[in-house]
Order: sequence, then C-alpha cells, then structure tokens
Amino acid sequence: MLLDPHVQDLLFREARTAHVFTDEPVDDERLAAVYELVRWAPTSFNQQPLRVMLVRSDEARRRLVPLMWDSAQARTAAAPLVAVLAADLDFHEYLPEQFPVFPQAKDVCFSNDDARVDSAVLNAAIQIGYFILGVRAAGLAVGPMTGFQADKVSAEFFPDGRHRALVVISMGRPGASAWFDRLPRLPYDRVFTSC
Amino acid sequence: MLLDPHVQDLLFREARTAHVFTDEPVDDERLAAVYELVRWAPTSFNQQPLRVMLVRSDEARRRLVPLMWDSAQARTAAAPLVAVLAADLDFHEYLPEQFPVFPQAKDVCFSNDDARVDSAVLNAAIQIGYFILGVRAAGLAVGPMTGFQADKVSAEFFPDGRHRALVVISMGRPGASAWFDRLPRLPYDRVFTSC
Repeated sequence: MLLDPHVQDLLFREARTAHVFTDEPVDDERLAAVYELVRWAPTSFNQQPLRVMLVRSDEARRRLVPLMWDSAQARTAAAPLVAVLAADLDFHEYLPEQFPVFPQAKDVCFSNDDARVDSAVLNAAIQIGYFILGVRAAGLAVGPMTGFQADKVSAEFFPDGRHRALVVISMGRPGASAWFDRLPRLPYDRVFTSC
Repeated sequence: MLLDPHVQDLLFREARTAHVFTDEPVDDERLAAVYELVRWAPTSFNQQPLRVMLVRSDEARRRLVPLMWDSAQARTAAAPLVAVLAADLDFHEYLPEQFPVFPQAKDVCFSNDDARVDSAVLNAAIQIGYFILGVRAAGLAVGPMTGFQADKVSAEFFPDGRHRALVVISMGRPGASAWFDRLPRLPYDRVFTSC
C-alpha cells in the first residue's frame, strides 16, 4: 500500500463508527473541502447522482428524528450535524453536460425508469462510500445509519419526489466512549474467489 | 483535510479511470492487502455483503467478454485482471457471527426478501466505493464498468443464484494514453442543500 500507516489508520483501521460526539459544530467550509476532493472519484457515465441534505435547523431535526428507527433516534437527535444522503433518480437530465462524450446516453441508456433508478441507487451508494472516507480524511468521525423509514424521509426532505433517501449520516468530533467494541470482518478467502 | 496533498492526488485528484493497462499482473497478495485495509470501513449491521470473483483464467474471461456492452468488451478482454463485484443477497446468514450484539437481526430485519436485497445492494455498492479507493491506494489504476448484462453475468459467475453482479472492474498499472480528458464534476452547491 502506498498510504502511510497513519493514513491507513485515519481512514480505515482506527476510524470507527461514532455514536457519541462533542458539541463542536461541522461547518459548510469543511464539508465543501471534503466534497471538493471526493467528487473526483468515478461514477458510471460520470452521472454523480448523490445529493446531500444537511439537516441544520432544529425544526428540520425534529422532523427527521421520529422517522428513524428507535435505536437511531437518540443519535440523530444529539449529533452536531446529520445529513440525508440520497440518490437523484433523474440524474440523467444533467448527463449531456456531465458526459459530453456521449450526450445521447441520457435517452439511449436511461429513459427506462427501472434501469435509471437502479443506476442512481448503485452510483449514489458508491459515492456514499467515497464520502464516508472523505469525512474521515477531514478528521471527523461518522455514524452512518440505514435504520429509518426511507419513503417518509425521502418525501419529507426531498418533496419533489425525484430523490430516494439511502443513508442518514451523523458527523462530528467523537466524544467520550464514542464507539462500541470492534466487530469482526470477513476474511479474504470468504469474500474473494477466483475462476 | 488531514491527508497530504500527494495522498489526495493518489486517491482522488490525479487517479483516473484507466482504459489501457500494462501487462504487469495483479497478484492475490496485493488484493489481499487492499481488502485487509478496506474491510474495516463500515456497513449496516456490519453485514459486509460484497463478494468478489476474480476472473483469472482465459476460459472465464472468454465467458465474461460477450456479456459486456460493446464499448466495454475490448477493455474487459485486455486488462491484466478483471473482477466481478457482487452482492451476496443472503448475507444475513452470517449476521449472528458478524453482528453478535444483535444476532436476531438476521430474522427481525432481513427475513423480508425485498428489504434484504435492497440492503445487500446498497451496502455492497458502498463497499465498492471503499474498494475502488483501496485499489488506488495500492498504486493501481481501476476501470469500473457497469455496462453489462447483469442477470447473465450473475448467473454465469455466481451460479448459486444468491448473488447479484453490480460492477465489473478492471485493474492494473495504467498504460500509455490510459485515460480520456477529465470530465466535469457537479459543484458543491448543486449537490449539498441545507434545511
């Protein structure tokens, strides 16, 4: 690996899903720096379907908390910043601009609704992987959560009906006793096979 | 950002989707080192649904190439290594071992087929994001491809019927003229919104 051990620790080995944060806020400038970096990582047809709703107001937070599953409500209420990460299911509108080498892709590849939604979800999720590592690279801890009423969160935070909420993420500086014991990971030979 | 500029370049800014590779092979040891690092990044309920089929034999490569869309066939045929990245749709079988803090999650959260498949695809895609950056961190270039007949690739390379192929990825050292011009990325204010 070409990464120094301390970078490997920062991104993967010592980074942990945080359940408790300090009160230090997470400002837009830091998130913009994260995005400015991670946006260069690849997506299919350069489609970039990820959209991020930062839940900053107390009023918006009060709308989100009851839509989370029980175990995630307290964490969602307490984190310095939570965001709803969603896929823009109509990302193809921007393809002629984002993928000018084949502007017809908008219609040729993505006029079928099912194919387009599948692609939006797949690529937004890949981008969520990039984003999680990017937030860690900014020195913050993340707490990704998928336990929520997705249809209601989508409708509440993206009322235009063209987005699907995929992950709610909490972010901030880890507080005292911020994480649980490390859970096991599958070994290489249970994940990789050759043919 | 806590990453040195050269690491930011390695992972994001100068790393590019490669279409041409040298003949240098990619061995299992390097992939195991990548996986050993990226496997620590988070998934929902620690479910880790990503599975990787390394297409190493000429015979297997010949089965894969015709299932790729036209534009991806030559790249799939020529890369030093291609792999099919898939979601294990029955990942929940391993949850009591991987998520021992709530072993009932296997049945309580994932006995519903639709919810389980959605979770497998979402989390495997997030892991694909981690994996792409991990391969880059090992000094290799990647060429992720989603243009293929997914049902046929799933059936051909995961005949047990419990996996869904999501991305085919080529890997190796970038060759001469390995990439096209950089495509544009959406600016921060078109991706992030506050409420």
